Amino acid sequence: MTIPELTDVHAAWLPPEAFRAIGSRRTLVLGDGALAGTVHAEVAAACARYGGTVRRTGDGPFDLVLALTTAGPLPPVAAAVMAEAGPIGEEGHVLARRDGVTVVLASAPAGLLYGLFHLVRLGEPAFEAARQAERHEPATRRRMLDHWDNIDVHPVMGQVERGYAGGSIFWRDGVLRDDLTRVRAYGRLLAACGINAIAINNVNVHATEARLLTDRLGEVAAIAAELRPYGIRVHLSVTFAAPIVLGGLPTADPLDEDVRRWWAATTARVYETIPDFGGYVVKADSEGQPGPFAYGRSHADGAGMLADALAPHGGVVHWRAFVYNHRQDWRDRSTDRARAAYDHFAPLDGRFGDNAILQVKYGPMDFQPREPVSPVIAAMPGTRLAVEFQVTQEYTGQQKHVCYLAPMWREVLGFGPWGPEGATVADVATEFVAVSNVGDDLYWTGHPLAQANLYAFGRLAWDPRLDPAAVLDEWIDLTFAPSPEPLRSTLHTMMDGSWRTYERYTAPLGVGFMVRPGHHYGPDVDGYEYTPWGTYHFADRDGVGVDRTRATGTGCTGQYPQPWSDVYESLEQCPDELLLFFHHVPYGHVLHSGSTVVQHIYDTHFAGAEEVADMRAHWDKLEGLVDPALHARVKELLDEQLRCAEEWRDQVNAYFFRKSGVPDARGRRIP
Amino acid sequence: MTIPELTDVHAAWLPPEAFRAIGSRRTLVLGDGALAGTVHAEVAAACARYGGTVRRTGDGPFDLVLALTTAGPLPPVAAAVMAEAGPIGEEGHVLARRDGVTVVLASAPAGLLYGLFHLVRLGEPAFEAARQAERHEPATRRRMLDHWDNIDVHPVMGQVERGYAGGSIFWRDGVLRDDLTRVRAYGRLLAACGINAIAINNVNVHATEARLLTDRLGEVAAIAAELRPYGIRVHLSVTFAAPIVLGGLPTADPLDEDVRRWWAATTARVYETIPDFGGYVVKADSEGQPGPFAYGRSHADGAGMLADALAPHGGVVHWRAFVYNHRQDWRDRSTDRARAAYDHFAPLDGRFGDNAILQVKYGPMDFQPREPVSPVIAAMPGTRLAVEFQVTQEYTGQQKHVCYLAPMWREVLGFGPWGPEGATVADVATEFVAVSNVGDDLYWTGHPLAQANLYAFGRLAWDPRLDPAAVLDEWIDLTFAPSPEPLRSTLHTMMDGSWRTYERYTAPLGVGFMVRPGHHYGPDVDGYEYTPWGTYHFADRDGVGVDRTRATGTGCTGQYPQPWSDVYESLEQCPDELLLFFHHVPYGHVLHSGSTVVQHIYDTHFAGAEEVADMRAHWDKLEGLVDPALHARVKELLDEQLRCAEEWRDQVNAYFFRKSGVPDARGRRIP
Repeated sequence: MTIPELTDVHAAWLPPEAFRAIGSRRTLVLGDGALAGTVHAEVAAACARYGGTVRRTGDGPFDLVLALTTAGPLPPVAAAVMAEAGPIGEEGHVLARRDGVTVVLASAPAGLLYGLFHLVRLGEPAFEAARQAERHEPATRRRMLDHWDNIDVHPVMGQVERGYAGGSIFWRDGVLRDDLTRVRAYGRLLAACGINAIAINNVNVHATEARLLTDRLGEVAAIAAELRPYGIRVHLSVTFAAPIVLGGLPTADPLDEDVRRWWAATTARVYETIPDFGGYVVKADSEGQPGPFAYGRSHADGAGMLADALAPHGGVVHWRAFVYNHRQDWRDRSTDRARAAYDHFAPLDGRFGDNAILQVKYGPMDFQPREPVSPVIAAMPGTRLAVEFQVTQEYTGQQKHVCYLAPMWREVLGFGPWGPEGATVADVATEFVAVSNVGDDLYWTGHPLAQANLYAFGRLAWDPRLDPAAVLDEWIDLTFAPSPEPLRSTLHTMMDGSWRTYERYTAPLGVGFMVRPGHHYGPDVDGYEYTPWGTYHFADRDGVGVDRTRATGTGCTGQYPQPWSDVYESLEQCPDELLLFFHHVPYGHVLHSGSTVVQHIYDTHFAGAEEVADMRAHWDKLEGLVDPALHARVKELLDEQLRCAEEWRDQVNAYFFRKSGVPDARGRRIP
Repeated sequence: MTIPELTDVHAAWLPPEAFRAIGSRRTLVLGDGALAGTVHAEVAAACARYGGTVRRTGDGPFDLVLALTTAGPLPPVAAAVMAEAGPIGEEGHVLARRDGVTVVLASAPAGLLYGLFHLVRLGEPAFEAARQAERHEPATRRRMLDHWDNIDVHPVMGQVERGYAGGSIFWRDGVLRDDLTRVRAYGRLLAACGINAIAINNVNVHATEARLLTDRLGEVAAIAAELRPYGIRVHLSVTFAAPIVLGGLPTADPLDEDVRRWWAATTARVYETIPDFGGYVVKADSEGQPGPFAYGRSHADGAGMLADALAPHGGVVHWRAFVYNHRQDWRDRSTDRARAAYDHFAPLDGRFGDNAILQVKYGPMDFQPREPVSPVIAAMPGTRLAVEFQVTQEYTGQQKHVCYLAPMWREVLGFGPWGPEGATVADVATEFVAVSNVGDDLYWTGHPLAQANLYAFGRLAWDPRLDPAAVLDEWIDLTFAPSPEPLRSTLHTMMDGSWRTYERYTAPLGVGFMVRPGHHYGPDVDGYEYTPWGTYHFADRDGVGVDRTRATGTGCTGQYPQPWSDVYESLEQCPDELLLFFHHVPYGHVLHSGSTVVQHIYDTHFAGAEEVADMRAHWDKLEGLVDPALHARVKELLDEQLRCAEEWRDQVNAYFFRKSGVPDARGRRIP
């Protein structure tokens, strides 16, 4: 095992400097197996740079002991920590410092790897004061990224669907890349923030990509081999129609015995090739993808068939709940896309097997900058639920805009309480999944600062109770190590509130979808208003918003548990930021903030654009403090962000001024 | 010369039946040369089918004499006609019938060919009553189609840009087609309606297509060889940057001597290969295409350079006047795209050489279903002008909708009078050009009834004073020969008013551009409202329309000659159908029709959709009277047209109802 070193790609949050504290110590790594080997190799590489030493046996003295509890006789200091700590979960570790020795213990190799990266985050303080044994365990067993990568370049969607960071890191020119060093480096970055699974291909499975399941399986195996040393299991998006398109069967009916046999045999072959294969991801009956509805079967039937094929091998199926009518008649106001996932899936609660995971987008619509939490999440206590986020910034600036998303995710994770035990999203989710924002770009993510979103997703998936501001500082300290002032505080200032800034200059008050159809970049207030996509705001000369109340609207509020059902139903209690998601109100409606709706629109749009201008001014001051090429890239992108924010401001304000006729109370220019 | 016979492509307006009258006669074809050979071959093919005879010498008796006046001793009856007729122009012919013999005389072979097709149009009546000598001459020397075909399939625009009839008839899979029989058949169709020139490739010249000028010139020659027997000369769209991208020069400056030499040498090589090559078509400084502005030169400089290169060989350059700022700031109400062509080109009048033709779109915007005539046309008496139409239905239903365009073109051609001599567009245009609607579709044009537009363009280009309704009947009689009732009258009813029907259900009162951005199909009222394209309607809660007056607007009305400048300037005199093109008015403004603007919008949109429903009902009655496959194709397309017309109706009505708050006076449902 050698540590991947890429000289032509940005180091992201693992620059050499981040390993200085570890690399300058005398370290013992105790334990066998591939992942322990990775830990040893990481420490050895750091030591080679910073003058420390690393051994796998012997008496010391040591400054740092990284040990598996199963590794035989531990040094006395480690044994003492073990006694203090008690049992440790599979991916967990215990950290302590006593008698001048920092100790990381794990009961399994993955835990040791996460313990090492925990030390990387801590840096020098890990080797300073004494420290009681702290237990660190992930909140969920699986922390996963979905890649929407295609092998071929799609004529409309490109190679990475909704990707804003270049081509796929896996495929190029229709074939697996010759050199997969970057894939291993990617695995390393992911392990360092806690990710342990990825699905490598687009959920919209086209003809070429379908074959990854069968005759192109070797490519999956090659990718898995690169990621395995960092504890990451590979999953595959498959088409529900695979028995037809790959197997030559006349049907893909999930209750058909031939179909079930085909899936069982095909899956067995996958596991022969990749014994630690993670499982399948399926987008079925969704935006044109095939699914069980064609055969009059339920989604529990569909997921169950795949779960049954995977179960003998320890695999899981991630079954996406993103099922709605994308050919809706906009004239029909009774149909409500926001209701669709709940209406489809809540009745199926308890019917998904133990290894079937229902993958639910965090909101009822589609990755908007502001949505309520999906009502599905509170409605399926008998189902394993993966909450799906979107690290790739489809609706949040497409990696041209600074938009640090962790504060939004944290709000989603903390949503609640509901039910007798006061549950939150973080309590009921059994895992977290996000769409990756990575491509073959020099900075991995197009916008260099978009790396923070990938990092933060991993960290929140590991511990949903983390403070996003603290995670941001972690990322800054690692990425820009040693992050001198004013770099650290300036970056923090620029990024911490950037999601709310983005919200201010885009669609107001939770109404969403005022983007250009198709590519979804930039404003188009009516772009989706008269389309079949179910994404409307219903603005007229008198008011705006979607009536989703039980009393007079689509009844979507009724899908929420109490107290949220009543909170959202009530015009008085509904939070301002979701007002237009749940209610149609006149422009003169007064918000809790004291402002009218239309004045709020004007004010937030002027403010949002001004905040971007401030952001750009902050960045200008960092010239000379960060790498010049990175500075130039971000500077250029901030110019575009400001242009686009002003475009949003002017279009949204002009639209509502033309419709409402209400002038801005502060007399500012509206085009 | 053999007549191209395609069994797998629709015969369009030249089915065998159309040749019955000629094919059952005893015919003499007198004259030498390739085109006379074509005439002979056409008559021979018809005779083979219908039992007539054809000879190239001899004494008769004959029923029909087709003769070149230069062909030596004419039969006495022909000599008598010649004496009566006097001189005949190069492409003209004289038709007479005396002593039981029908005589067609021409002074040049092309005239004989057009005379033959004139007989085809006449059918049996050409051989009935005696007929005084009638002279038929084309109004203009060149009647041309522009193909927007690419060699390669463009990832966004497809192979034929704005094409709705499949791929290119010239190229397939990146190379010239092996079998060019269809190209010859196309030439035959074009000759039969009077076209005598085509530009074979897209005015947006991409990298591959640029090379048609040099190393892929053989493909142009091959196409020219297929079209030559039907009197059609081939032109080529070239990129202004050719000296750089093909010639390796550092500049394309039209005043640079190296550049001029490169064009002269390159053009000479073209003529060595294709001695009757027509010339170049250039889209310069337009929507991203390169042009003389980059070098601080005028468009007269640019066109002049190419004209100079072509002049020694008798070629011409078509220089498009479609120059405007496509990156306009929508917030800037003083910039007006409708002014752009005039502002750019009118000052250059007189500076274009004799073989430079300024190609001007018929309206000041871009092929909308309703625009005023371009003010450029009346403003450049010292310049040769080609008026450009769009047979391909980019903005008029994309060959999914029945929309017979000849009535619109006829209105444009008849526009005027202006100036001391009472000129019209037809008087000042020196030629007519249109974008072709043809592809490799079974019916040539996607929608079988869209063939009528191609036919009618050729006929109007030949004689701009023809009645579009009569041309429609010609097309019906040829295409559906022998066109029994009720087929003939039903088709006429469906098609004759179809452009006005289309206008009724789409953008109202000349305001235009309420289409989906990008592909331009279907409604999106605000789709272009906040974009850089210069295509706005400025609807707010009080009113709608673009103020282009001199008094308070952009001054576009001032570009028109009197009396039109004052007519358009005046709210009272401006024709209803152009009201919103020139004026911004309140929704309550009363039209000449007596209706308010908003009620007119409602009424026309309900009426337009109803008319499409009627059209479909008419078509249903023709089942069994036309070829079943053709009937099925049109039936399916009419379903789509009705769906789309209802979508237009509902979106436009809903948009204006939401904005104006004015209910429909007749209480109909507006979503």
